[in-house]
Amino acid sequence: MQLGMVGLGRMGANMVRRLMRDGHTAVAYDRNQEAVAQLAGEGATGAATLEEFVAKLDTPRNVWLMVPAAVVDATLADLVPLLDADDTIVDGGNSYYRDDIRRAKEVAERGIHYVDAGTSGGVFGLERGYSLMVGGDDAAFRRLEPVFASLAPGVEAAPRTPGKAGELHPGEAGYLHCGPAGAGHFVKMVHNGIEYGMMAAYAEGLNIIKNADVGLREHAIDAETAPLTDPEAYQYKIDLSAVTEVWRRGSVVASWLLDLTAAALAEDPDLDGFSGRVSDSGEGRWTALAAVEEGVPAPVLTNALYSRFASRELDLYANKVQSAMRAQFGGHAEKRA
Amino acid sequence: MQLGMVGLGRMGANMVRRLMRDGHTAVAYDRNQEAVAQLAGEGATGAATLEEFVAKLDTPRNVWLMVPAAVVDATLADLVPLLDADDTIVDGGNSYYRDDIRRAKEVAERGIHYVDAGTSGGVFGLERGYSLMVGGDDAAFRRLEPVFASLAPGVEAAPRTPGKAGELHPGEAGYLHCGPAGAGHFVKMVHNGIEYGMMAAYAEGLNIIKNADVGLREHAIDAETAPLTDPEAYQYKIDLSAVTEVWRRGSVVASWLLDLTAAALAEDPDLDGFSGRVSDSGEGRWTALAAVEEGVPAPVLTNALYSRFASRELDLYANKVQSAMRAQFGGHAEKRA
Amino acid sequence: MQLGMVGLGRMGANMVRRLMRDGHTAVAYDRNQEAVAQLAGEGATGAATLEEFVAKLDTPRNVWLMVPAAVVDATLADLVPLLDADDTIVDGGNSYYRDDIRRAKEVAERGIHYVDAGTSGGVFGLERGYSLMVGGDDAAFRRLEPVFASLAPGVEAAPRTPGKAGELHPGEAGYLHCGPAGAGHFVKMVHNGIEYGMMAAYAEGLNIIKNADVGLREHAIDAETAPLTDPEAYQYKIDLSAVTEVWRRGSVVASWLLDLTAAALAEDPDLDGFSGRVSDSGEGRWTALAAVEEGVPAPVLTNALYSRFASRELDLYANKVQSAMRAQFGGHAEKRA
Amino acid sequence: MQLGMVGLGRMGANMVRRLMRDGHTAVAYDRNQEAVAQLAGEGATGAATLEEFVAKLDTPRNVWLMVPAAVVDATLADLVPLLDADDTIVDGGNSYYRDDIRRAKEVAERGIHYVDAGTSGGVFGLERGYSLMVGGDDAAFRRLEPVFASLAPGVEAAPRTPGKAGELHPGEAGYLHCGPAGAGHFVKMVHNGIEYGMMAAYAEGLNIIKNADVGLREHAIDAETAPLTDPEAYQYKIDLSAVTEVWRRGSVVASWLLDLTAAALAEDPDLDGFSGRVSDSGEGRWTALAAVEEGVPAPVLTNALYSRFASRELDLYANKVQSAMRAQFGGHAEKRA
Repeated sequence: MQLGMVGLGRMGANMVRRLMRDGHTAVAYDRNQEAVAQLAGEGATGAATLEEFVAKLDTPRNVWLMVPAAVVDATLADLVPLLDADDTIVDGGNSYYRDDIRRAKEVAERGIHYVDAGTSGGVFGLERGYSLMVGGDDAAFRRLEPVFASLAPGVEAAPRTPGKAGELHPGEAGYLHCGPAGAGHFVKMVHNGIEYGMMAAYAEGLNIIKNADVGLREHAIDAETAPLTDPEAYQYKIDLSAVTEVWRRGSVVASWLLDLTAAALAEDPDLDGFSGRVSDSGEGRWTALAAVEEGVPAPVLTNALYSRFASRELDLYANKVQSAMRAQFGGHAEKRA
Repeated sequence: MQLGMVGLGRMGANMVRRLMRDGHTAVAYDRNQEAVAQLAGEGATGAATLEEFVAKLDTPRNVWLMVPAAVVDATLADLVPLLDADDTIVDGGNSYYRDDIRRAKEVAERGIHYVDAGTSGGVFGLERGYSLMVGGDDAAFRRLEPVFASLAPGVEAAPRTPGKAGELHPGEAGYLHCGPAGAGHFVKMVHNGIEYGMMAAYAEGLNIIKNADVGLREHAIDAETAPLTDPEAYQYKIDLSAVTEVWRRGSVVASWLLDLTAAALAEDPDLDGFSGRVSDSGEGRWTALAAVEEGVPAPVLTNALYSRFASRELDLYANKVQSAMRAQFGGHAEKRA
Repeated sequence: MQLGMVGLGRMGANMVRRLMRDGHTAVAYDRNQEAVAQLAGEGATGAATLEEFVAKLDTPRNVWLMVPAAVVDATLADLVPLLDADDTIVDGGNSYYRDDIRRAKEVAERGIHYVDAGTSGGVFGLERGYSLMVGGDDAAFRRLEPVFASLAPGVEAAPRTPGKAGELHPGEAGYLHCGPAGAGHFVKMVHNGIEYGMMAAYAEGLNIIKNADVGLREHAIDAETAPLTDPEAYQYKIDLSAVTEVWRRGSVVASWLLDLTAAALAEDPDLDGFSGRVSDSGEGRWTALAAVEEGVPAPVLTNALYSRFASRELDLYANKVQSAMRAQFGGHAEKRA
Repeated sequence: MQLGMVGLGRMGANMVRRLMRDGHTAVAYDRNQEAVAQLAGEGATGAATLEEFVAKLDTPRNVWLMVPAAVVDATLADLVPLLDADDTIVDGGNSYYRDDIRRAKEVAERGIHYVDAGTSGGVFGLERGYSLMVGGDDAAFRRLEPVFASLAPGVEAAPRTPGKAGELHPGEAGYLHCGPAGAGHFVKMVHNGIEYGMMAAYAEGLNIIKNADVGLREHAIDAETAPLTDPEAYQYKIDLSAVTEVWRRGSVVASWLLDLTAAALAEDPDLDGFSGRVSDSGEGRWTALAAVEEGVPAPVLTNALYSRFASRELDLYANKVQSAMRAQFGGHAEKRA
């Protein structure tokens, strides 16, 4: 079928490529005309303006937005007036699901369908396929299902779960209609929250192994420094790259994130290329907000997020407050680095 | 080569089977003579007593213990006097690595080698192989390497990491000599700590999705109940089993633990077969102890552990203290379930 | 000066009493006419309806709302049409500060001032005074300052901070103009967040002391139970009530919350009167939301909140997920209580 | 009565002064003879050597050690051979309670009593008195009780808890016999753990207020930066020093630590004199170890400890691991400071 793609960054462009490989056609638009020209050279129909883009789409139109979350509303403001009733808009980016709920209502006033498609897979999606978590009304989902099916990795990407056989169950093809507007981005949001937790779990564990040699180092002996009770128990120098390799095979913690960690450590075991300031891009925060608002505990996911904040020194004033208290009650002078 | 196995529970027996399949021979001993008879029927040499077990082993002997951590010392007390210099003992169970350091010193006084082999793979190890994290002296490791190679899944269990080709790097075969005595169990300990963190990450995330319908439920309106600010944002009823399926294919959070979660949810989506009391068996605690003693933060791993404690109501008195404070300062009566 | 009070529950009624003791006059209204009659008997001017209430107030009117956060908007809907430009409304309850921002804008359209006054002090406020955190425009704050001054404990409630002498600095009298609309409830919100953290700190610590006898108890020896490495280190039976008494005198952790804990333990050392289900009433959640949105780590405050959620078993499904995973990979059967 | 004091640092010297003020006599020893001369000038009996110190004490001797935890064992090695059966040693420093258990057994072989006295009060103890948590046998405790009574603040340091009247209950005088050897330092350890939690609670809360102006700052709009959903909700510039003053009077979070925080903010509201590297000195770690070993959750206390570790960048490798993963799966380049 035909899909219109707005936003031809790494994600959008690769999704167009994956669709065309699977026999679909695409109309492609981006403010950056070089990106349009590049994809046109690969077989897509390019468009120089949003008006031209809309004109080149068969009706009812199917428009997929793959733009930064911060510009979705601005893009919709330009796009929606050009569309007709029964057209469908898919937001494939990292929008906050509450924005989906609002937007779906807004465009529904014009008879337009709104679909939110949380997309996981990153730079590997072109070859591996994208895991798609979809929200929106049934009609729109069904209409776009051929697109989802081509973008997704397919059932063969993982062995079928024991007890599942025959006709595919929901989700097994690598895409899932999660529910009404926002449900797709809700599930994608939690997916990323879990990702934060898993990443922190590996990171903390590897840091504990990295510091298993602490007993070999010199320690200050003063009232400001906690003593190391058993230095002889911390005398290991362990090859972290090799550890990730052994865990990749047969262990309970094997995962794709571990594969990627092994790849990073194979290139640079001490990770000297990184400063340790870990960004966060919204979903981890929203997951924590959802946990708090629902009233369910999420200490692992939230602490993973907070560790990222601390890695960027957003805890600085809090730490100064504690040093100041220590100076007050104990006359403790702060130890500098 | 020949290996002696002491302890023929699920893990020990399956390891013997996996070794025999790969051409090794085994002498097998367990207090439970039925377990011995079972394995003897499958080709192992059975032994009725520890003395007979030792007598049937070629020298220098290689003895693998696969017994509960709590009985390793008692087993060693019986076994060591029967062994000779240059024999090797492998502890393949879940010992605390500090016990390895001590035991290695103790048996070294008699010229005996001690190897600690952290083993991951669970009930799937017979078919998938076991991920082996090994500590001990070089000579002993090398002597036992054919055994490790047969027990491990082998390099083909995972695609080789980009940049790794040709001769295998350490760990790629699925077993790794991590360092001197205790290093194997140290790495296995942290492995389990990470496992706790990952499990909690999935569990918390699925719980957030499970409760995405909180806006549909009735809420008390009183001073003891936090208001739900935006009930319309929490109106989703999402199929958790389907979510795990879609994540298994192409997403960043794909993992073996997720595969197992999908299997559990396929059987019983509401997990009614479980009461929610999550056990912990040592390694998660030891990982937290190591983090604290090394002085490295491990909030994710430690909170995952603490959540298990709380699941067993080990926080009861702490909670009563808080309810008591609230009663004191605000006259708040506790809301019962 | 004259103040109108809407809401004569424990907090509102006591605030009227404290104001009258200090020479102010009050017009009092509540839906519950018994509450009105009670206060009228103590010297306040009672009102049978909101209309009568408004009519009895001198202009420009000063109306203090002391009603549950969930009914503030409904109360305003009835009240605001009866008021005139330059009247002032104070919300002294536990509103979310974002609601203050909205309400201040709404009533400003009619020329009415809106003041948010976060109030701490609980059932002890009548005698000890209330700590008041105030938001709103300067004119309204200044107009109401005599009321704040009478409600607050006054500077003598605590020794002046070293270096502060002479004229009172902001906050020293026990009330503070924190900033524009919402600022008062923002500071009160964080105050409660800190309260959660402190309460949990005491509760966790006392629970650790309570369980210092764990080495005296019997332990299962099986693969589902973490071994207690050094039982001889946990053989203490410690009098918790006495511990709180000794900490109240001269220690770094002395506080009013500790005084209250001591009072609770003096009545009931085992706290048998409590079930351990700890309520939360909004501010702790909002504090966590603010931390996440600001991007600053708040692990202590947020984990204190999550522990309350867990105390009410809102982690149940998450725990079942973990038990289910353990059953899958290790064949672990859940241990029941 | 007479007490011998070994270690005349700030704590030891002030304790001698407080004892002498109350009519006791003291023999004072320190390697630093200036410290000895100073106290001798104030009325103590100075000693130039440990031998002389012991010789000047009446039998049975009472020797109080006030030396760094790291040198207690070395001091005991010199001191114990000089003592006789029925003498008593008090360790008033910050020893790990497990060392007390061991030391008590060791000196008991020579008939010597061992008392551990956890001491809180810091630099304010001379005037306010010291909160004393004592472990050891009954006879030794009773013999030293006059010393404890003089060092402690006394019952009048806090209002008696409602329901307590007449004869003093345990702990009310400001010292407490907590149990056998180690019990005093166990309770002091948890006291410090709670202190960490409370300090972090205030610090996190003040940091949230400090950053209530985040909506006024410029934000990058890119895929590496989480969007600020409601900038208009974070536009407050709040006077933190004034906030601590208002909380000190009538609020639920009033405490001595808050008094000290107010003092620090009065001197330096932005705390520019501090770098934010928060030391930890043992007890916070031991508290976490106890929680883990007992199997009781302590997320607040442990996360407070971990935040201190992170303030000293002990999470650096963990953070690099996470940045490396993000680079792998998403092509995310790390944002530098």
